[in-house]
This record gives sequence, structure tokens and C-alpha cells, in this order.
Amino acid sequence: MAEMNDIYEKVMDVARRRGFVWPSSEIYGSVAGFIDYGPLGAMMKRNIENLWRSFYIVQEGYYEIECPIIGPETIFVASGHVKEFADIMIQCPQCGEYLRADHLAAEHGIEGAGALPAEAFREVLYELPCSACGERLGDTDVVSFNLMFETTIGPGSQRRGYLRPETAQGIFTDFPRLLRFYRDKLPFGVVQIGKSYRNEISPRQGMIRLREFSQAEAEIFVHPDEKRHPAFHRYADYKAPLLTIPQQLENKPPLTTTMRAAVDAGLIANEYVAYFIALTHRLLVEIGVDPARLRFRQHLTDERAHYAEDCWDAEVYSGRFGWVEVVGIADRTDYDLQAHARHSGTSMTVFIPYDEVKRVKRRRIVPDMGMLGPKFRGRAKAIAEALVASDPGKEGVTVVVDGEEIFIPADLYQVREEEVEVRGEEVVPHVIEPSYGIDRMLYVVLEHAYAEEMVGDEVRTVLRLPPAVAPVQVAVFPLMNRDGLDVIAQQIAGTLAQHGIIAQYDDSGAIGRRYRRQDEIGTPFAVTVDYDTKEDGTVTIRDRDSMEQVRVSIDALPATVCSLISGTTTFRKLRA
Amino acid sequence: MAEMNDIYEKVMDVARRRGFVWPSSEIYGSVAGFIDYGPLGAMMKRNIENLWRSFYIVQEGYYEIECPIIGPETIFVASGHVKEFADIMIQCPQCGEYLRADHLAAEHGIEGAGALPAEAFREVLYELPCSACGERLGDTDVVSFNLMFETTIGPGSQRRGYLRPETAQGIFTDFPRLLRFYRDKLPFGVVQIGKSYRNEISPRQGMIRLREFSQAEAEIFVHPDEKRHPAFHRYADYKAPLLTIPQQLENKPPLTTTMRAAVDAGLIANEYVAYFIALTHRLLVEIGVDPARLRFRQHLTDERAHYAEDCWDAEVYSGRFGWVEVVGIADRTDYDLQAHARHSGTSMTVFIPYDEVKRVKRRRIVPDMGMLGPKFRGRAKAIAEALVASDPGKEGVTVVVDGEEIFIPADLYQVREEEVEVRGEEVVPHVIEPSYGIDRMLYVVLEHAYAEEMVGDEVRTVLRLPPAVAPVQVAVFPLMNRDGLDVIAQQIAGTLAQHGIIAQYDDSGAIGRRYRRQDEIGTPFAVTVDYDTKEDGTVTIRDRDSMEQVRVSIDALPATVCSLISGTTTFRKLRA
Repeated sequence: MAEMNDIYEKVMDVARRRGFVWPSSEIYGSVAGFIDYGPLGAMMKRNIENLWRSFYIVQEGYYEIECPIIGPETIFVASGHVKEFADIMIQCPQCGEYLRADHLAAEHGIEGAGALPAEAFREVLYELPCSACGERLGDTDVVSFNLMFETTIGPGSQRRGYLRPETAQGIFTDFPRLLRFYRDKLPFGVVQIGKSYRNEISPRQGMIRLREFSQAEAEIFVHPDEKRHPAFHRYADYKAPLLTIPQQLENKPPLTTTMRAAVDAGLIANEYVAYFIALTHRLLVEIGVDPARLRFRQHLTDERAHYAEDCWDAEVYSGRFGWVEVVGIADRTDYDLQAHARHSGTSMTVFIPYDEVKRVKRRRIVPDMGMLGPKFRGRAKAIAEALVASDPGKEGVTVVVDGEEIFIPADLYQVREEEVEVRGEEVVPHVIEPSYGIDRMLYVVLEHAYAEEMVGDEVRTVLRLPPAVAPVQVAVFPLMNRDGLDVIAQQIAGTLAQHGIIAQYDDSGAIGRRYRRQDEIGTPFAVTVDYDTKEDGTVTIRDRDSMEQVRVSIDALPATVCSLISGTTTFRKLRA
Repeated sequence: MAEMNDIYEKVMDVARRRGFVWPSSEIYGSVAGFIDYGPLGAMMKRNIENLWRSFYIVQEGYYEIECPIIGPETIFVASGHVKEFADIMIQCPQCGEYLRADHLAAEHGIEGAGALPAEAFREVLYELPCSACGERLGDTDVVSFNLMFETTIGPGSQRRGYLRPETAQGIFTDFPRLLRFYRDKLPFGVVQIGKSYRNEISPRQGMIRLREFSQAEAEIFVHPDEKRHPAFHRYADYKAPLLTIPQQLENKPPLTTTMRAAVDAGLIANEYVAYFIALTHRLLVEIGVDPARLRFRQHLTDERAHYAEDCWDAEVYSGRFGWVEVVGIADRTDYDLQAHARHSGTSMTVFIPYDEVKRVKRRRIVPDMGMLGPKFRGRAKAIAEALVASDPGKEGVTVVVDGEEIFIPADLYQVREEEVEVRGEEVVPHVIEPSYGIDRMLYVVLEHAYAEEMVGDEVRTVLRLPPAVAPVQVAVFPLMNRDGLDVIAQQIAGTLAQHGIIAQYDDSGAIGRRYRRQDEIGTPFAVTVDYDTKEDGTVTIRDRDSMEQVRVSIDALPATVCSLISGTTTFRKLRA
């Protein structure tokens, strides 16, 4: 366990020292749950986000939108967050520390205490020690703490607002506009990348549990009866390790199976969910997650939101944190759109035309107001309305008006048989949601990329980051900081940058030390300008992982480096 | 004026209808000061941000960092925002509406009322009508309203936090880390793109006055005595229209002059400020601002922050809003770093080594503790410390200890003459800050791009957006939605997307209508697959602005479109 914890310290040491991640507002003591991305971390984060976009925007053809972080209270009343986005909390009567009560109970082997009524929960906690001061808790109040950050929009406390707990709600509230943008057709997908917030009670897990974090979410709106993905063939034969509900209940390892087989066997609810499990697997491996430490775990029935049809977490194994959820993929059904339709009074349906117009027979009830009026006076109108919606028998029908049952005989209304044309139906779409936690992805990639190896009798620290994700893609060195080598190297760095390659010039210190510095931040390639460069116009490219070198001409350099980064060629092929 | 206002309505009509910008949380009635970027707006915004990065990150070589939006109160106490980031507000006693008092006074021709004491201000407002209900205001309280959004971090109101009013403070608080990243050398630059907040009292100017907005800020840390920009030659001969302080005072139009001449004549304080004025001019023109409606206005002495050495706004003329500030470029001196050093107790200096070690003579005072001890007992230590820092005369010196003056004769200490080596000095850098408002930039670009023209007897609406900024860069149409033309067109759209081009496939409606739809959203090029395509493998490219067409082979299409978008070729050349 000591060694396992160690990896986190080592990774964070490099991350802090080299400018990936810093404690936020460090000069004022910093606040738990907030981090700063330094120059290298911010670059790496953008690389991950752009790779994400290459999947969801370029390949899937979905559009990205950008909604505000602050939303008025009404949105989050409708979404259920005002009522339900909460953790159970106590305050230690001895030291005053706020603690998450369910976590505290779980630490002492009492699982599922969160489901207990407050009174029973208090009794459970009575004898337990505070995890901050160690004193026995005794009498404490178990309270629910809402995890949204609250603020006020405008002066005079006019309007309560919250910082969004997920980017998804912006997409849901824009549904009517988005539907028109997509010309009233299903399916369509919309994505959003941005900050979300969770005002954790006492976060203590670094980049894994942040109060301000970055999400990349996609909401795919589909016909509720058509959950076959039109491009399923792309991933039908793709295999991913699935920890299904039965595997979990029976304490078995994940099944590795194709998406086609998983859907056919009913392990995954539908093709859409399976499609995004496979896509997510490929995406996570491409950003640098070790596939041997990646699995998809299905939510257990009692863990799943009541409305969700199926839900899977992409979990990545961390030496420090164990299995960490980095992506959630859920079929949320029509829950969100129904909730917003109900609260806003705005229609959230799609009109689906039938292939052919249907002629449908129906009965229409026509109240005889000439009879009803004199008989029921003030209540006649309400009774007529109830009649129109009723389903009368032969003799008449009993309607309920103001809580009173009234029998209306058949001679007070007419029943007409009609045939009407129906051109289609209004449908509330279901939503498939893959939701990615960018900060967690970045951390687990750093952890999986971190390696130490002996080179001669020195330890080499190296981040084996994929070239697409590395914050510096190519380093450019002059062998010596003189004789014009530095000028040539600076020009090369400039040219590479113009080709969209993230290049870094460095002329400080011995060349071996410069290689090591780049190894430590994961730079996959280093170009060195030496005295031969002035003779024959060639430079060396050094490969981070094999530490081997190859000479190429300066003219061919941008194209060669582009191919190495995109993976259309490999360093080994280059040497052959 | 009617026609001028009109342009805003027209632009916003296209923007809403086609998915650039929507009112946020519209289904719940929306809240002033918040907008959603729809699919096209979000794409255009990212294009502008990436173009900004190509200037600041690729060309200038600055690194981007990413700090949280929520910051603890301490940061904003130090920065001065808790005390000073406020507007003067009244509440109408009749209708209860909150109003910005200085704006209200200015609407009635009373300029500069914001500088009056509260009591005098009240008297000025007494007879004025409320701008909401029209009633005479009468007795009102003039209060200061802080414009930061406030929230609480963690449970139990433990810690007050604010949403940042600018991204800059994150860079300043990270200064010690950033300095180490840049290996303790000046100058260096750091940038940040992200959301900032201003809780406006009653915003009524659409995208020009948002409560949540996007900034792109650069902070360049320079030696206070070296404000010559090392790459000034890049922009020395660049011309920009400068509305200097004298031009404004004399009511004259802007001077158009080179940056070199402006610095030499003392119109611009230094080369750094001039460099970023020129860079900003080029950047704004590249994203599509009409250079004839762009000027740089120098802040008047009383308008400039007290610490700033010089400050210029890039102003763009809007038919609706008049001259709008979209960028601010300031020499903030060492104000921010000094403030954070003072409040945090952390050093914010850079050690600047001298070219040669200097030998400096100095006097050292050595108290004689053997004499002081018996004589002053408990106060001896404090007196010794005061002596070390004192500047004694021949007979002795008077020191102040605990408020008491004590004369210490010369025999109670020794004065030694020493020569010490001084290797350099600690310097607090000055900060040059170009700060861009992305939302305003996007709006003015839409307004300047908007055109209506007669084509035959129809009005054509067209957004003349630069290809680098347009949300769709190329549309791909099959002439007919059959005979395999649609399949070929879809393949072409896919291939273009793989080349990093933002392509949109459309097969719906007549081809003329499809061209018009793309004109309206500013798509610079449209590719059409027709029956000749099946014969000879060529397609047409249609140019948005000239509406002319040219045939090119499918194989050459990606390279041709890339060249058209990057501007390395033009449509006219292609036709020649």
C-alpha cells in the first residue's frame, strides 16, 4: 500500500514542479477542491478536450453549445437539484469540523447508513469518533447539505442563482431551439465542454474530488422506440471489459465481449449505450489510459437514478485512489425533458410524421347545452367539459365535477363517430448521455504515463504520454548555444509552431540534461541542431521512449514530425 | 438613427434564428446579462479564441494557464475589488426598480455625478424621473453596490468566495510559480482565456453588457526599466488610428501613425504598449472588424486607474451602441504584484543579476552587548536591533524603542567600514496587460459582417465573415438527393472534416435556397456534387462573396479549401 500511495506523490511532485497542476491561490494558503492548471497542464487539458472534440464533433457530427455557468433557481428546481443534490452532513460538537456522515459511517464498516432516517443515523454515529479530532461524536444533528454553490443575480437579493452542477441542463433547456436548428428531426446530438461545480463538504482527494471541475458532456436525443444506432457497425465488433450487474453480484471479473454480443445478450440496454461505451473505451486509450486498468461497470439497480434505463461508469484504476469513475454513460429516458416541460410549460416534443397519413376513427361527445344549461346552471360548463373527456356507456356516464360524482343520462349529449386524418405523433425524445470528467481523465493519464527506469546507473523519470496529448510535442535544441546553432534551432521551432505543432526551444544546460527535462514532462520527440546541420542541412530526431535517434533534413522535418504526432508513421519505421 | 438601430435587430434576428446566440434559460423567461451560444455561435467563438491563441501563444510564445472562477475573499481584498469594484445605485421608491445612479444622471445631461458625495448626489437625483416607471424619484438612498457575485465555499458559511471579475488575478497570484517555470528570467508572458463576472445592476445592452462573459487576457511581466520590446521591429512600421489625450481634448479625429513614431513622440508610453496596440489592430481586422470603424482611444488622466502608466482601449463602432470598448491595453506598473506581496507576505520579486559583480562599501553598526546589557537590561535587545538599522553621527545616535527616544553614546557600539559583493538586485516587475472581451468582439464582427444586397430582384442576406472565423467553413451539397450524388457529397464532407475543416452537409431544398442559407450564416465556400462529378471526378466550389464558381477535382479539394481558408490562395487566383 505504501508503494501504491507513493505513485500519487511522485506524479504530483512532477506536476507541481514542472507546471502541470498547482494548488490554487497558494500564496493565500489555498482552498481544498480548487486547482490551477499551470502552463503544461493547461496545454495538456486543451489537447484532451480537442481530442474529445475530434470524436464527438468531427466524427459524430454533433454541435457544441456554450451556456452560462450561473443559472436561475427555476432551472434547478425543475432538474431536481434544489431538492436532491445534497450530501448528509454532521458538525462535530467537539472540534466544529463538518463531516460527510455517510463517509464517516462507511469508514467504520457501516455501509448504506445514508439510507437511514435521520434519527437512526444519529444513533449510529453516537459512539463513533470524529475523523478530524478523534473525540467521540455524541449528540449531533444529521442534516442535508445542498451541494450547489449559491449566489444572487442583481442587487437587492432579487433573484437566487446557482452555479451549474452539470453542463447538461443548459442543453435540455435549449431543447426547443436545438430541435429547430436540427430541422425537427431525430436523432441529434449536442455537446458542451465547460466548468461545473459541487460544493463538497470536505474534499480531500486532490484532482479526483474538485469543487470546480471541467466536464465534457454529450446529450443525444433519440426516438424512444428507436434505440438502434444508425452507425452501430462502427463499433459492433469492438470489445470492452464489462463489469455487468451479475458479474458484480457474483464477485466475478469483467467480461470482455463485443458490443454486438453485449446488446444481443441484453447485458447492455441498447445500441446507443453500447456505441458510447466502445467510443469511450477507444477515446480513453487514445489519451493514454492503460487498457489493462480500464473497465466499464454497470450501475446496480439501487445505485442507478430511478428514471435511468441503464447506466455504466468507465472506471480507471489508480494506485492511490483505486477504481475511479471518469466517465458516466446513461440512458436518462425522457426524465429531463419531461421535467422541464412540466415546470416551464414549454413543449419538449418532436413531431414524428407517419410514413403514410393514418385515418383514425374516433368518438366525439357533443354535450347538449340546451338541456344541460337549465338543469345544472352554474355548473353546466364544467359538466360539459367533463363530458367531452369522458367515455360514456349506453345509459349515460358518471362525471366528477368539483369532487362530486354526477350521473348524466345519454339524452343530455350526442355521441358522433368521426374519421380523422392523423399525420404523425408528438414524441418526447429519450436522452443518451456520455459525461466525461476532464480533470480526472488528466490525472489518471499522468499516473499511467509515469515511469522510472534505470539508464546506466541513473534513474530516468519519463511520462509516456501519447503525442496528441503531450503538452510539448517536440523540443528543439541547439547542441551548443553559439556558432549560429541557436539561430537555426529557433527558426526550426518557429516553423514547427506554424505547422500547428507545440514546439519548445531550449538552449540551457548540457544536452543530456535537456533530454531528461523533456522526458519528465512527456515530450515525445526532441530535435537537435548540431555542427553537421550547418554542413548538410539535417538534424537529429530523438524518440522519448526508445531514446534512439534518426537524422532527417530540415525541409522534411515539419511533415515528419506531423506524421509522428498523428501516428501515420512511427519512429521505428523512420529508422528502418 | 432608426436605420442605425435597425442593424442590431437584423443581426440578432439572424443570430437567434440560425443558432448563433440565444437568450439563456429562455423557457423560464430568461435573465438579463446571460446568453447561450448556439451551435454556430459557439463554433465562431472557439474560432476567435483559437485565432487569438495563434497570436499570443504561437507567435508570442506565451503560455496559457487555467485558474478557477471561484476565488477566496483574500484574493479580492488584495486586488482591491472588495473595496472598489462597485457601481452607485438607487432603488426607485415608487416602483422598486434598481437603477445605476450615474447612468440615470448622465441620461439627463448631468455628467460626472458619480464623483459627487452621496448627499449631493441625492439632491441631484431628487427631481429626476425614474427610468423604469417615470415617477419623480424624490428621496432615495444612494448606495454603493459591489459588482462581484458572492458565494460560500463549503458548509456552514465557512468561507466567503467570489466569482472572479477578471482572469488576471489568477495569473498574479501564481506569479512565484510562473517565475520559476520561466527560469527566473524577465520578460515573460502568461495568458488566460475564460469566464469572468460582473453582477450588473440592470444590464440592458444584449451582448455588450453581460453579467457572465468571456475574457482573453495576457499579462506580460517586464523589467520596470526595460520597456523596449525585444521584437518591436515586427510592428514598428505598423500604423493604427490613435485618439490620443490631446486629440480628445481638442475634439480632433484620430491620428494614424506608425508605432515607432508614436513612441518616439511620446504619444504612447512605451514600446510594449505600442506593440500590443498594433498586434490588437491586426488581430481585430483578421477576425473581421472593419478597419474604418476601429480606433485606439487613450484613457484620459482622470479616467485611468491611479496606478496605470498608460492605458488604451480598442474601440469599435457599432450602429446600435456607438463606439464600444472591446480591448483594453494597459501598463499596470507593479501595482498588482505589490498588492499581493503586501497581503500575502510572499515575495513577488525577480532577482536580476548584474553583468558584473559590484563591490559596494557600507557601514556596519555592531552594538556592544557587554555594555548595553547591564545598562538597559530587558530593553537591550530591542535597542541593539534599532542601532543596527540606525545611521549614527559622531557623538552617538538617538533610537526609538517602544515609542521612547533614547540617546546611545558612540562608545556603546562600533562602526565598521566593509566592502561587500552585490551580484544583482531584487526587482518587482511591471505588468503590461492586453485584455480582450470575446463576446463583444463576436458581436461587432457579426454587425460588421452583416450585409444585404439585391441579387436579381431578391434581397440576399450575407455575413461576410473571414473564413478563419466562420462557424461553417465549407458547405457540401449534392445537386440532387439521389443517384449516389448524396453519398459522394457525404464522403467529401467527411474527408474535409478529417482535414480539420468545419464542413456541413446539406441536401434539403432547392440548391439556390441552400446557397442562401449558407450565405446568411457566413459560410465562405460551398462545394456542389453534380452529374459531371460522376463523369470526371470534379466538383464546383462557389465563392460566397462573388457568387462565382470554379471546378476542381475531388482529389485536390482538401488542399484547395485549406489554402482558401488560410488565405494562401484566393478565389480569384483559383479562377484565373
